[in-house]
Order: sequence, then C-alpha cells, then structure tokens
Amino acid sequence: MEMKEAIGRLEAVQRKLFAYNSASSALYLDGVTVAPRDTAEGRGVALGVLAGERHKIMTDPALAETLAILDERKGELDRVHARQVEELGRAVRQITRIPAEEYMDYAMLTNQADDVWHRAKERSDFELFRPVLEKLVEYNRKFAGYYDPDKAPYDALLNEYERGVDTAYLDNFFAVLREKLVPLIRAVGEKPQPDTAFLRRTYPVEGQKRFSDYLMGLLDLDRAHCGIGETEHPFTLNFTSQDVRITTNYKENDVASSLYSVIHEGGHARYELNVDPALDYTCLAGGVSMGVHESQSRFYENIIGRSRPFIEAIFLKMRELFPEQLADVTAEDMWQAVNRAEPSLIRIEADELTYCLHIMVRYEIEKALIGGALAVKDVPETWNRLYKEYLGVDVPDDAHGCLQDSHWSGGSFGYFPSYALGSAYGAQMLRNMEKEMDVWGPVGRGDLSGVTAWLKEKVHRYGCLLTPAEIVKNACGDFDPTAYTDYLTKKYTELYGL
Amino acid sequence: MEMKEAIGRLEAVQRKLFAYNSASSALYLDGVTVAPRDTAEGRGVALGVLAGERHKIMTDPALAETLAILDERKGELDRVHARQVEELGRAVRQITRIPAEEYMDYAMLTNQADDVWHRAKERSDFELFRPVLEKLVEYNRKFAGYYDPDKAPYDALLNEYERGVDTAYLDNFFAVLREKLVPLIRAVGEKPQPDTAFLRRTYPVEGQKRFSDYLMGLLDLDRAHCGIGETEHPFTLNFTSQDVRITTNYKENDVASSLYSVIHEGGHARYELNVDPALDYTCLAGGVSMGVHESQSRFYENIIGRSRPFIEAIFLKMRELFPEQLADVTAEDMWQAVNRAEPSLIRIEADELTYCLHIMVRYEIEKALIGGALAVKDVPETWNRLYKEYLGVDVPDDAHGCLQDSHWSGGSFGYFPSYALGSAYGAQMLRNMEKEMDVWGPVGRGDLSGVTAWLKEKVHRYGCLLTPAEIVKNACGDFDPTAYTDYLTKKYTELYGL
Repeated sequence: MEMKEAIGRLEAVQRKLFAYNSASSALYLDGVTVAPRDTAEGRGVALGVLAGERHKIMTDPALAETLAILDERKGELDRVHARQVEELGRAVRQITRIPAEEYMDYAMLTNQADDVWHRAKERSDFELFRPVLEKLVEYNRKFAGYYDPDKAPYDALLNEYERGVDTAYLDNFFAVLREKLVPLIRAVGEKPQPDTAFLRRTYPVEGQKRFSDYLMGLLDLDRAHCGIGETEHPFTLNFTSQDVRITTNYKENDVASSLYSVIHEGGHARYELNVDPALDYTCLAGGVSMGVHESQSRFYENIIGRSRPFIEAIFLKMRELFPEQLADVTAEDMWQAVNRAEPSLIRIEADELTYCLHIMVRYEIEKALIGGALAVKDVPETWNRLYKEYLGVDVPDDAHGCLQDSHWSGGSFGYFPSYALGSAYGAQMLRNMEKEMDVWGPVGRGDLSGVTAWLKEKVHRYGCLLTPAEIVKNACGDFDPTAYTDYLTKKYTELYGL
Repeated sequence: MEMKEAIGRLEAVQRKLFAYNSASSALYLDGVTVAPRDTAEGRGVALGVLAGERHKIMTDPALAETLAILDERKGELDRVHARQVEELGRAVRQITRIPAEEYMDYAMLTNQADDVWHRAKERSDFELFRPVLEKLVEYNRKFAGYYDPDKAPYDALLNEYERGVDTAYLDNFFAVLREKLVPLIRAVGEKPQPDTAFLRRTYPVEGQKRFSDYLMGLLDLDRAHCGIGETEHPFTLNFTSQDVRITTNYKENDVASSLYSVIHEGGHARYELNVDPALDYTCLAGGVSMGVHESQSRFYENIIGRSRPFIEAIFLKMRELFPEQLADVTAEDMWQAVNRAEPSLIRIEADELTYCLHIMVRYEIEKALIGGALAVKDVPETWNRLYKEYLGVDVPDDAHGCLQDSHWSGGSFGYFPSYALGSAYGAQMLRNMEKEMDVWGPVGRGDLSGVTAWLKEKVHRYGCLLTPAEIVKNACGDFDPTAYTDYLTKKYTELYGL
C-alpha cells in the first residue's frame, strides 16, 4: 500500500467513527433530555446495533494493517497523522480484545441502566438498580482485563480516564489532601457559618434561565455553537468543536445549583469549543482526558466562579433578575454564601472544600467493588458508613446516597477521581497564570477573556494532540498537589477569618 | 442456504436498518429542535456517512441473494415474512440503481438545505435558497429515473409517496374537486364572514402548552410514549410504535395555529402508536404511505377537530385556560371562527375548504419543475401568479410564498398531493364510520375512543402489512372523491347558511 492510500484510509475511518459517535450521542442526548419516559427499549436496540457496527470497523483486520503500515513509516508522517496512528492504534488494539457480542451487550446495558437508574433514584429504590449495577460491575471487571491484563482491574480502569494514574498514585494524592485538608475543615467547622438562607428563596425558573444566558455570555459561549438543555444530572456533550451542548437542572429554591452547574458545564464547553477545528472528524478531536477536562470545568466553576471578584462582577445582574429575593443581600454576603463549607450529602452541591471527601467515598467504593472486596448489595451500607466516617453526615435514603450520581449507570468506574485530580491541576494552573498576568482585575469586571486565552493556549487548543501528561506539564509544570491545598488554605482562611 | 438461516438474515438486516434510521432520525430531530444554529456541518458529515453505510447494507449482494432465496420459496413463508421480502426486495432493487456517491451526497444536501431554507425563510430571500433548490430538483429528476425509468419523472416520484398514483390520476382527481368546490367557495365568498378577531387576542404560550397537553390527552396520546417539541414547521417522527414525537409551533396571537397543528400531528402519532408492535424493528413498521397518513392526521384535525360536537366538547377547557380572552365568546362562535373559509397565503393555516387550492398550486409547480417545464429561478413568479389565479391573493414576499413549506428543502417532491388525497380518503372513512356507529355523540362528550378504535381496526394496526390500496379499500371501499366534496358541501352549507 502506498503511504498516500494508507493516509486516505486513516482519514476515512476516523470520519466514519465520528459519524457513529455522533449518532450515539444524538440518541443519548435525546434519551436524557426530551424523549418520553417509556422509550428506552427502541434506543437500546439502535445503540446496540450501532455499537456492533462501530466494533466491526475498529476490529477490521484491514484497519489494523493500515495502522501497522503507517506505524512502520512513522518518521515520514506529520505530527498530526503520527499522533492519530498512535491513538487509534491503541484503541484498536484494546477493542480487538473485547468480544463483539460483549461489546454490543454492554452498549445495550448502559442504555437500559440509565433508564433504570432514573426510576430507582426517583423512588429511592436501590434494589431496583442493584441487578443492573451488578452486571455493570461484572462487565467492567472483565473489560479491565481486556484493557490491560497486567494491571489490577481498578488500575486498568483508572488508566482509561487518566493515562498513568493508578491506585498507588491516588492513595498518595488523597493522603496529601487528607493531611492538609482535614485540619482545615475542622478549623472552619469551629467558626460561625455565613447565612445562606437567601439562596433558598423562590427564584422562578424563567429568571434562572435568563441568568444562564447571561453566564454563558460571560464565558463567551457562542450560542450559535453551544446549546443548553435540561437534565436530571447536568453534563456536556460535544459533536464537533463547532457543536457543543451543555445541560443544567433548575431548582426553584436553590439559585446556586444551576448557577454553578452552568459555569461548570460551561467550562467543559469552553474547552471543547477552543479545540483546533482542524482536528474535527478525527480521533484527536475533543478534550484529552477526564482529569484535564475536570480541571477546566472546576477552574471556571470554583477558582473563577466562586472568587470574590467574579461574584462582585455578576452580582448586579443577579440583583436585576431577582430584585426582591436579593433586596437585603450584598455581594459580600453572596460570596460568603456560595463558599459556605460544611459536610453534606450531595456531591454536585458540595462546597469546594469538602468536595474531595465525596470523591474519596466513591474512590474507596469503586476500588473495593472492582477489586472484588465489596459486593454490590453492600454498596448502600458502605456508602452510608463512609459518609458518616468522612463527612460526619447520616444518609437518609439512597436517593441522597449511592443513587445520586449517574456515572455508574453510564458504565463509568474510575471517573470520579478525575474530579479531584482536575481540581488540583486547576489550582496549579492558577498559580502559573498569576505569575504571567493580572487574573483578578479583569475577572472583577466580568472579563474572562484573558483567563480563557491563557487556558486555550496552554490546554484547550491541543485537543488530543498532546498526551494528558504533556498538557498538565505544559500548563502546570511538575504536578504538585500542594498548590491545591495552599490555594484552599488561603481561600478559606480569608473566608472564615481563621 | 436453509430457510431458517435466510429468515434470520432477513430479520437481522431489518434490525440493522432500524438502527440506521433511528440514528438519522435522532440527528434530524436534534437539528430541527434544539441544536444551536451554526451546527449543520457536523450533522451533515455524520448523516452523509450513515447514509453511505445504510446504502452499503441495502446494496450488499448477499442481501439480494437472501431475498431471492426467500422470494423463490415465498409459499413457505408466513404472511409477515412474505410481505417483508416483498417490501424490502422492492427497496433493495430501487436503491441498487442509485450510485452510492449520489446517495451520500444527497443525504448531505438535504441536511444542508434545511439549514439554508430556515435562513432564507427568515430573511424572505429566495436567492439564498435557489442554488440548493436547483440541486434538489436536479437530484430528484435523476432519482426518478432510477426509481422507474419507464415513468415520467414526476410520476415516478408520486409513486414513491402513494403507490399507483400518477399525474393522470391526480389531474382527474383535482378536476373533480375543482368542479365541485369552486362554485362552493364562490357561494361562501358571497356570505358574511364570521368574526375571528378573538382568535388573534394574546394567548400566552404557557397556557397554549397546557392546552396542548389537554388535547394530547383527548387523543389518548400516552405521554410516556409520545413527546412534544417545538419547531418552525410541525411534524411527526416515529422511532418505534412505542416512541413517537410530535412538534408544534406556538404563536401568541393565534390560538388556532397550535391547536390544529397539535391535533394534526396528534393524528399522525395516533396512527403510529396504534401499529402492531410486533412489526417494530422491521420494514413493515410505521404508517403505510403519505396519503394514508395524511388521511388520519386530517381526519383528526378537520373532520373531528373542526366539527361542532368537538368544539363544544373542548370549549369549556379553552374558557378555563383563557378566561379573559374568551369572556365574550361562545362555542358556536368558536366553531364558526375555526371554520372560516377564505382564500389565504399560508397552507398550514388555510381552512379546510380552500386548502386543496394550496395543494393544487404546489402540484402544478412540482409537475412543471420535475417535468422540466419550469426553471427554479422562476418558482417565485409562478407561485405568485398561481396564488393570484387560484386563490385571488397577492403574495407579499417569498417567506409568505414559495419559502413557506419545509418539504422541498427536505427533498420531498410529490408529497403535497397526499394531503389532498388524504382529505378525500378521510371523508370516505367518515361516511363508512357513520354507517357503523354513533360518531358524534361520544365526540361531543370529548370521547374519541370509538373513532380511534375504528381507525385502528381498519387502518392503523396493519402498519405496512397491507398495501396503501388495500388499506384504502379496507376503510373506504372503492375510492370515491365525491364523498369528500359531499362532506364539504354539507358542512359549509350549514356553516354559511347557503
């Protein structure tokens, strides 16, 4: 085969994979936003067939041959094609190890699981979800062996979300956090809490929607390329760098909930929209890893979104939209309220300081589940015990406990630690950013363009052209978790007058 | 090949085709409902690839071989499999004649065309749409040759929407309508018009949405299986018999617009939801033809929805939702207002009596366009001339003229006549229904269950198990257009006191 022909084949197959991903994404998006309740079956059949077709493409011996030819003559390839051969080659080798039938069954299972999880959460009925979760865990243990038979199963899964990360690394990382943060959380707990009651006043959804529009404007999310919908559990989905969707969940008596889910998902979207469009329709399109992605979403959400200058910048707009609700509230009150740190039940509503404890609970459970040390039936009990132990709170029911997140029903085991890693990366990016530019002056005027430009330059534009480690190195330097603990210590010392 | 193996293959390929159709439908639905404005490109690439893959499945020689084997031993097949072989065989033979590349290009073109049409209509700029429409016409002329080279191009296209219908048949059908309806319309025009100003009062969208929910309830559209969204041009889309979507378009100053689009699309949905679920995932799922489909939607919309008993049944609810707007209005006023017959500009807002004239304009233009007698650039002029000639109205701009409908941008030429045929079928169904049961007593109490049961028994449940002609025969007997002209004559004589 000529090089030119091989490159043509490489490009065609990536375009094809893009189409299958788009199709699955569209069916998924429909399923979690507007689809009628009892319609999962048909989507399941469709997703199963499409997964099978995608599997056939990935395991086609002709593709493996093309990749082998290109890999042999890698020196002649430009940087983009070389990286495509590397990434696609890795994916092909991995998927080739998963039997087609298991692959298709799994696609149908996750689709069905999402539906079952929704019902189970609604009724707070873990027993309803248990059989599905058992299958999901079983599949993931099996898949882990396919991904990398030399690794412990949970390490193999972790490696999928963040190349190079394993339990040893995370045990160590969480130990650092625990050492620094536990005394800090204790010190905060001894101080009087700011008033947050005004956040729970009635904020009509219509006003919150206008507020979302305003926030998307602040993040410079072009509405011609970035849509917003509503789902139980907010998420971001990218079709291309020109077509990204975020979702949120409006709660009439909790104005901060949608505020921060919009900024969080907006951060994911900001990343996707900034990836070099030349990478669209290839395997290098989109964000590089969960950890790096979360570093961006949590950067916008917490580091920017919960900063005093940002709150000062948006407070006038909040007062304009909710004049009665905020008549007796100042920007300073708002800043303190959205940063109130206190152990709680729900991860996505947790404060920035105690958030990592929520992740640690999930990390411990996943490690034990996938490692085989914990049975699915014992998840609720373990969950509740760990919440009591780490956070000191009593879980009233599974809807507010182990059924709260959609990750497991989506088949994601090993994803959660990325949130904590991302937070740590973000704090280190801030440290570097502050050395190079005035971050807070413009943010205080509602101008995030400088921040976004810095992140685009160091992180976003590359898509998957660099590895996660290269991007972290690029934006953070050598990874140092104390940038994160220092950042939190400084912030909460100021907030609580420690 | 064993029969059992051949049947297994037949079923597998239909399931696969279902998945590709679902994928394209999900991408399409997203595109016309929630997708951000400038995102057509990515969807176009995805739809193009999927169309190519679908094409590959349909033109696979192994499929043709399987179908040939089954066709040879048709006597041994049950009715459902025999009909699948017939229908799929026809589709395979047809698509095999379309070159793969043209097929894929066309899929991308229609996706792009939808986007361009939206913009063109927004700006009333036919020139923006013209180049795309030229390509669409050119493709359809070419495809007509592939469908049936022995037929005139427009006849070949008509045959796709309603097997057996051609220009000779339609010229004749429209001549009957013209003969009977033109004097009727003239007589109506000489009578004083009922007041319709109250329909244009301000009806907040929120109230209209609640009204839609109520109407969907009357049609017994189970919301767990039937969703409603909003689009520029309302339509119905079915994934399976258990997953159907309708859309509408709320206009604050036109309460009748959404009222009747919900009932019209609800009629389509009623049909789809009543098809035997055993036919799901096969080529026999869904409504049998455009004409039969329109007979159902227009039956619910006009024959039921604009009848005096139905208006009496829903009027209390309307008054409850819009007490101020309807304070001085009676059910009788409402019945007269929603039946006001008067030549107008917009097809989907036209009254039941003059509606066919709108269809005739489109029929004449399509016939000339596809026949080669009319250039695309001359469409606006011809459109405006025919509207003046047939309806006596001056078209102020192309947004209210030849850019008003989405059909052509979707690649549908030959679809429009189905609306008129469907209306005629529906009137004949009513004639038979009235012989067998009390139609209007229950309708006057808001109970449509008898009507729906009759239609389900005679039309809906079959899906594509019978041919359109067999279903029309089943529900109507021998087709007789005068059932339609008689129905209109009786109705408008009563309404206008002729």
